[in-house]
Amino acid sequence: MQTKVSIPPLREEIGEQTARYIDQLTKPQGSLGTLESLAIDLAKMTGETFPTVLPAGVIVFAADHGITEEGVSAYPQEVTAQMVRNFLNGGAAINVFSQQIGAKLKVVNIGVATDIHDEKVVNRHIRKGTRNFLKEDAMTLSEVEMAIDAGYEEAVHYINEGIKCLIVGEMGIGNTTSSSALLAALTTHSIESIVGYGTGITEEQRQHKVDIIHQSLHNRKPNPEDALDLLAKVGGLEIAAMTGAMLAAAEHRVPILVDGFICTVSACLATLICPDVKHYMIVAHQSVEPGHQKAIAYLKKEPLLNLSLRLGEGTGAAIAFPLLQFATNMVKQMATFSSAGVSTK
Amino acid sequence: MQTKVSIPPLREEIGEQTARYIDQLTKPQGSLGTLESLAIDLAKMTGETFPTVLPAGVIVFAADHGITEEGVSAYPQEVTAQMVRNFLNGGAAINVFSQQIGAKLKVVNIGVATDIHDEKVVNRHIRKGTRNFLKEDAMTLSEVEMAIDAGYEEAVHYINEGIKCLIVGEMGIGNTTSSSALLAALTTHSIESIVGYGTGITEEQRQHKVDIIHQSLHNRKPNPEDALDLLAKVGGLEIAAMTGAMLAAAEHRVPILVDGFICTVSACLATLICPDVKHYMIVAHQSVEPGHQKAIAYLKKEPLLNLSLRLGEGTGAAIAFPLLQFATNMVKQMATFSSAGVSTK
Repeated sequence: MQTKVSIPPLREEIGEQTARYIDQLTKPQGSLGTLESLAIDLAKMTGETFPTVLPAGVIVFAADHGITEEGVSAYPQEVTAQMVRNFLNGGAAINVFSQQIGAKLKVVNIGVATDIHDEKVVNRHIRKGTRNFLKEDAMTLSEVEMAIDAGYEEAVHYINEGIKCLIVGEMGIGNTTSSSALLAALTTHSIESIVGYGTGITEEQRQHKVDIIHQSLHNRKPNPEDALDLLAKVGGLEIAAMTGAMLAAAEHRVPILVDGFICTVSACLATLICPDVKHYMIVAHQSVEPGHQKAIAYLKKEPLLNLSLRLGEGTGAAIAFPLLQFATNMVKQMATFSSAGVSTK
Repeated sequence: MQTKVSIPPLREEIGEQTARYIDQLTKPQGSLGTLESLAIDLAKMTGETFPTVLPAGVIVFAADHGITEEGVSAYPQEVTAQMVRNFLNGGAAINVFSQQIGAKLKVVNIGVATDIHDEKVVNRHIRKGTRNFLKEDAMTLSEVEMAIDAGYEEAVHYINEGIKCLIVGEMGIGNTTSSSALLAALTTHSIESIVGYGTGITEEQRQHKVDIIHQSLHNRKPNPEDALDLLAKVGGLEIAAMTGAMLAAAEHRVPILVDGFICTVSACLATLICPDVKHYMIVAHQSVEPGHQKAIAYLKKEPLLNLSLRLGEGTGAAIAFPLLQFATNMVKQMATFSSAGVSTK
């Protein structure tokens, strides 16, 4: 891996400055609850007493998964490429939500199985999907490193273009299977308790998915303390790329708004590579995928929203983004008790 | 009361059209969770398959409360007028949040005790605060009716100006005491379980507030089935005005985004006047004020957010408003499986 990550510590003293300032704003102390703690966290991350999160940048990484050969998904593999075209044409949920929040959006082909000929896609293609990890390792270590590096570099490009908050999303038919395998290997939770209904499988299909993951982990035996080994054995190209992108954001003091199950598993892997990355993460929401709650608990975070989402693409993070705007606008735009001539208690 | 309210039924068949359309959008069915049910609810309310919520209109009603003589609040009564000036000068949280969501904002003086000389305020002044309801009725029936009518008329003006979603907020030192008394009278919950720390009182002050409410309800004996009697005995001018505004919105098929404790108690009173108003209400958030959960339960609703807010002014509703935008933009802007050429299951 070319990526050598050096993540700066939080600026605690800036957070304290922001906290003291918030207590002077014309409202009862603490009465904006989570928005106040969000503003303080953003100040610590960015090192700015009056932090900015605009514009956000969304990167959707797309890749295919060899494990789909085992019939683990509700949708055929072709849907990955079809949805990439939908992203490029502006028709997917993440397009609509990115536009509402004024975010930049780029789509990175990190390993889609079907050829995509469209100059609007960012081409960082490594291979046509992972190998079927029931039968062999999903990737070589070199492929994992290339994917992490690509994600890292794409985030750095974005940060150099001026984005102030990173949202990473994914598209990859089969990637809840890979994520469930990764989380089961990373933690002591049973596969049964982690695996959900993905994009909409039946209970019988879910049981099959549990069995496939169980057999795959038995066959692959990934090292639970080694993110690269985990990714190589049962990971995904887009999951590795998201990990790299999050490391880049933390290194540059750019807050990361973490999306759903797959993104959060990727965030967990990033903490294995560099534990301090966690300090730059805000968990956007709690999805209905049962493994998501466990991945959030692994990060020791609390989600901002709970709206029964299970789409991915970065949509849950985009939906939570206005809360970061409310928090930063509160700090920047509200009057203080003294400036407004309002009596305190 | 001049206001004669006639609330139309929900357009269930329009909701069904929207639901069928949402199932064709390029995402797994149901995967946008609460946003999907929100979009369907908005379709039923507005009667539009592709509903619109922009622009929202925020009305903040301000009034004082005679019960503050009993030392129930953390802040002195002058703060009501000071905060009204802060609203008019753009420095309060509701100003900042209204601007972020592109909402119109108007401030109505329905009964502030201190004179306010500023042409930016909408003057619907009825009296200089309510009477101290420990000792006498807060208002006459005629005053209650005037306040309801004023709220109704201000909402109708706004709707005629084109607002598509109503947010009502309030400012009134002492109004959690009035709201707690109203909710205790309306329901079987104990006063002890309803009363919280308001804008920041101590436990000793909270116990005093409980005692004052207990004695007031004993003295006033409001009829729990009569909203006007409840308001006259222990209500507030701004609480009555909010009730009128919500009735107007429902009558005109304009969705109501219900804010915190005081606003939700006002919503409960509106349902006593006309039960169908409830169908046009969306509860924005669950605040930390313990009575709020009980008021939401009275409406048989679920809050969208839980962010430990306790500010009022309509702020929690403004913070939830982007969710309504995400929901309506989803319906209006996403591609369908057939238009995007994406395979279904």
